[in-house]
Amino acid sequence: MLLLPDEPEVTATITAFENSPDRGRGLARDMQVRWAFEEVGQPYDVRLLSFTALKEPAHVALHPFGQIPTCEEDGLVLFESGAIILHIAERHPGLLPKEPNARARAISWMFAALNTIEPPITAREAAVLTEKDEPWYEARMPIVEARIRRRLEALSNQLGNADWLDGDFSAGDLLMISALRRLGRSSLLKEHSNLAAYVARGEARPAYQRAFEAQLEVFKAASKD
Amino acid sequence: MLLLPDEPEVTATITAFENSPDRGRGLARDMQVRWAFEEVGQPYDVRLLSFTALKEPAHVALHPFGQIPTCEEDGLVLFESGAIILHIAERHPGLLPKEPNARARAISWMFAALNTIEPPITAREAAVLTEKDEPWYEARMPIVEARIRRRLEALSNQLGNADWLDGDFSAGDLLMISALRRLGRSSLLKEHSNLAAYVARGEARPAYQRAFEAQLEVFKAASKD
Repeated sequence: MLLLPDEPEVTATITAFENSPDRGRGLARDMQVRWAFEEVGQPYDVRLLSFTALKEPAHVALHPFGQIPTCEEDGLVLFESGAIILHIAERHPGLLPKEPNARARAISWMFAALNTIEPPITAREAAVLTEKDEPWYEARMPIVEARIRRRLEALSNQLGNADWLDGDFSAGDLLMISALRRLGRSSLLKEHSNLAAYVARGEARPAYQRAFEAQLEVFKAASKD
Repeated sequence: MLLLPDEPEVTATITAFENSPDRGRGLARDMQVRWAFEEVGQPYDVRLLSFTALKEPAHVALHPFGQIPTCEEDGLVLFESGAIILHIAERHPGLLPKEPNARARAISWMFAALNTIEPPITAREAAVLTEKDEPWYEARMPIVEARIRRRLEALSNQLGNADWLDGDFSAGDLLMISALRRLGRSSLLKEHSNLAAYVARGEARPAYQRAFEAQLEVFKAASKD
C-alpha cells in the first residue's frame, strides 16, 4: 500500500506505568520510546498498566519479563526499549544517519549505552533501592561507583568538546543520555562537565521536552486519584 | 559492484585477547563475534592484543572503552559485540529471519540478552572477581543471585519446550546463550533444565564449535610461550 504524505501510518501503542515509581522524573523506560517517537515526528498511543497487571499472563504474553515498555503496531509486538527504538529509527528518518557506515557506528553507540554504560549504573540503583539497610552498604558504595567512574571517564574522553557522540544527534545519543540520566542526583555525572552538558543538551531538545511532559502528565493524573 | 558467488567480500578483522583471562573457556566477547561469522559462513581475520595494548591510544581510537572486540572492515570500525553481530546479521543470511516482524522480534531478543539477562550475570561476575575478600561477600551473594534467578525464571517460562526463543535459531539466541554461558560453573543455570539444554543445544552447533576451537587455539598458543 502506498501511503499518501498526509495519510497517517498505523499508530503504535506503547505500554507505560500507570503510576511510575520514579514519581514523574522520566526514568522509566517508556521515556526513551516516547522521546524516539517525538524525534521522528510520529504519534503514538499509550496503554497504562498497574504493577499487578505487569505480572499477569496477558502482559507477560507481550513482554516475557513482565516489564514496560512494549510496542504494538499492526500485529507486531516488540519489547526491550533498545529494540523498539531501533525499530522506530529504521522506519522513520531522524534517529540514524543514512550513510551505512555512520549508521552502523550510531548503532554501536546504542549498544554501548545499554551494555557498557548502563549496567554499572543500574547496579548502583539496585544497591540504593535494595541494600541501603545492609551493613555493607556504605563500605561497598565506593567499589560500585568506581565501576561507573571508569566508564564515564572513557565516555568523557570520547565525547570531548563535541555536541553528540558521532556527528549528528542519533538513537545512540538518545540511549546514552537516558542511561546517564539514571545517575540522578549523584555527583558522578558532575565530575565530567562535558557529560553534564551533554545530558543537558539532550534534555533541551524539543522532542525530549514533549516526551517528558507526556510522561509527567501520567504521573500527575495518577497522583490526583 | 556485483559480487560473483565465489568471489570473497572484504574480509573483516576483529580484535581478541592475546592471552584471554578466561583461560580458553570462550567467555571473552570475541567468541560471540567468531560464532556469528561462522554461522553466516564468512571468513574473518583476528588481530591479537595484549592487556597493555588495549589501553593504548591506537586501540582506544578504535574502541572508546579500551576493550575487545572491534571489527574493522573496509574503512568501517565497529565496537560492542552486539552491534558487530547485528551488522553481520544484516549483511549475511543465517542470523535473522527475512520476514520483517520476525526479524524485529529476533532483534528484541538480542537486546533482551544484553540489557535484561546479562547485566545481573556480569554483576555477579564482578562480585566474584573483585569482592571475594570483602567481609560482605558471602552474605550478599544470595541477593545477587536472586536478581539472576528472577530473570532466568521468566526466560525459562518463555522458552518452554522450544529449541530456540522465537522460531529458528537467530542472533538473539546466539547472544542469549552467550550471556547464559557466563554463569559458568554456578548452579543457577541447572535450576532450569530447559535453559541448560538450550545452552547445550547452542554449544552443539558446528558454527559454535568452530568458533570455540579458534579461540581456544589462541589461548593454547599463548600458554606455550
